[in-house]
Amino acid sequence: MTNTHRSLQSRDVPHSSNTIWHNATVTRERREKLNGHRSILVWFTGLSGSGKSTLAHTVEEQLHQRECRTIVLDGDNVRYGLCGDLGFSDVDRVENIRRIGEVCNLFLEAGNIVLTAFISPFKKDRQQVKKLVNEENFIQVYCKCAVEVCEKRDVKGHYKRAREGKIKNFTGISAPYEEPDADLVIETDTVPLAESADLVVELLQKRGILD
Amino acid sequence: MTNTHRSLQSRDVPHSSNTIWHNATVTRERREKLNGHRSILVWFTGLSGSGKSTLAHTVEEQLHQRECRTIVLDGDNVRYGLCGDLGFSDVDRVENIRRIGEVCNLFLEAGNIVLTAFISPFKKDRQQVKKLVNEENFIQVYCKCAVEVCEKRDVKGHYKRAREGKIKNFTGISAPYEEPDADLVIETDTVPLAESADLVVELLQKRGILD
Repeated sequence: MTNTHRSLQSRDVPHSSNTIWHNATVTRERREKLNGHRSILVWFTGLSGSGKSTLAHTVEEQLHQRECRTIVLDGDNVRYGLCGDLGFSDVDRVENIRRIGEVCNLFLEAGNIVLTAFISPFKKDRQQVKKLVNEENFIQVYCKCAVEVCEKRDVKGHYKRAREGKIKNFTGISAPYEEPDADLVIETDTVPLAESADLVVELLQKRGILD
Repeated sequence: MTNTHRSLQSRDVPHSSNTIWHNATVTRERREKLNGHRSILVWFTGLSGSGKSTLAHTVEEQLHQRECRTIVLDGDNVRYGLCGDLGFSDVDRVENIRRIGEVCNLFLEAGNIVLTAFISPFKKDRQQVKKLVNEENFIQVYCKCAVEVCEKRDVKGHYKRAREGKIKNFTGISAPYEEPDADLVIETDTVPLAESADLVVELLQKRGILD
C-alpha cells in the first residue's frame, strides 16, 4: 500500500443517524483500470540543455496517442508556480524536491503517468523522491549529454552567464552533477529524439505499465 | 488562456542542427477531448463536520462511474503531504491555500475534475484560489450545516477539544466562518447525501463540464 493509498483511505469520516457516510471509494487501482495503464513516475535527470523536457514531452505525445493519461512536470510549471516562493539554497532545494515528490504522489494516486524534467544533480535528492513515492513507482532516466554539447546549445544563455560568473553554483560548470544508477541511460547528444522516446516507451512496456 | 496554459507553452527549448526539438504538444484541450469532459475545480467549503469530504467523495464516485477523471484533495492527502511543513498561523494558512491552488492548476492542466474539501473559512482565501486558477475554472459549493449538528457529529473530537480550549481559533467555536456567495449551497444537515451529490453533478452538466 502506497503512501497516497494510506492517506486516502485512513480518513475518519463523520457519522450520522440519518445519512450514510462515504469514505474514498475511487482508488488508484480503479483509476488505473479505467485508464488502461498503470500510473508511474518517470524521473528525467541530466544537465541543463541535455534535452530532458524535450524528451519528456516527446514521450508524452507518444503516450497520449495511445490514450494514456499523462502530465509533464518541469521547471516551467513547478518552479514558477508551486515552488515559486523557493530559491536555490540547500534548504530550498530540498523543499523543492519534497514538494515535487508530494505532487507526484497525488498524480500517481490519480492514475497518471508523470514525466518530470528537473536537473536534480544530487543523488540524495533523487533518492528522497524515490523514497517518497515508493520505489515501485519510480523509474529514473538519465539524459546523458556532454557538457560541451549542452553549453553549445545554451538557448537560455545560462551557460554563458555561468561562465561569466553571473550565475553561481551552475551544474556542470561551477557545481557538480552526480551521475545516477538510472533505469535507463540515453546519450541524448548522439541518439535521435524519436529513438530516445521509443526507448522510454519500450521500458514502460517491459515494466508492465502499458499493456 | 489560463495560467497553466501559458506556463506550459512559453518554454524555451534547446535547438540543435541534427535534432527536431519539441515543445509541449499535449495540451489541456487534447486531454479534455480524450477524457470526454472538461476539467474544473469544485471547491467545497464549510464547517468541520459539515460533510465536505464525504460529499466530494460521493460526487467522485458518481463521476468515476461516468468514466470521468477525478481527484479529491482534502486535509488527509494535502495537509499531511504537500503542506505537512505548514502550521495554522495566518502566514501558513495563506501559503497552504496558495499551494493548493497551484496543485489544482496542475490537475486542471491534466484534464481532471478536481474536488477539494477544505474548511477555508475566509472569503479572501477562497478568492485567492479563484483568482489563481481563473474564475472560469472555479465552482464553489457551500456545505451549509448548523454548527450544532457539526458539533454533535464530532467524530474526530475537535469540537470537544475546542470547547475545552485545547484547540485555539477553531472555526465555528472560537473563530469565524465567512459564508460564501457560492455557486451552489447545500444544506447538508437536512439534504440527504445522495441528493446532495446529484445537485453537484447536475450543476456540472448545466455548466457544460460533462456532456
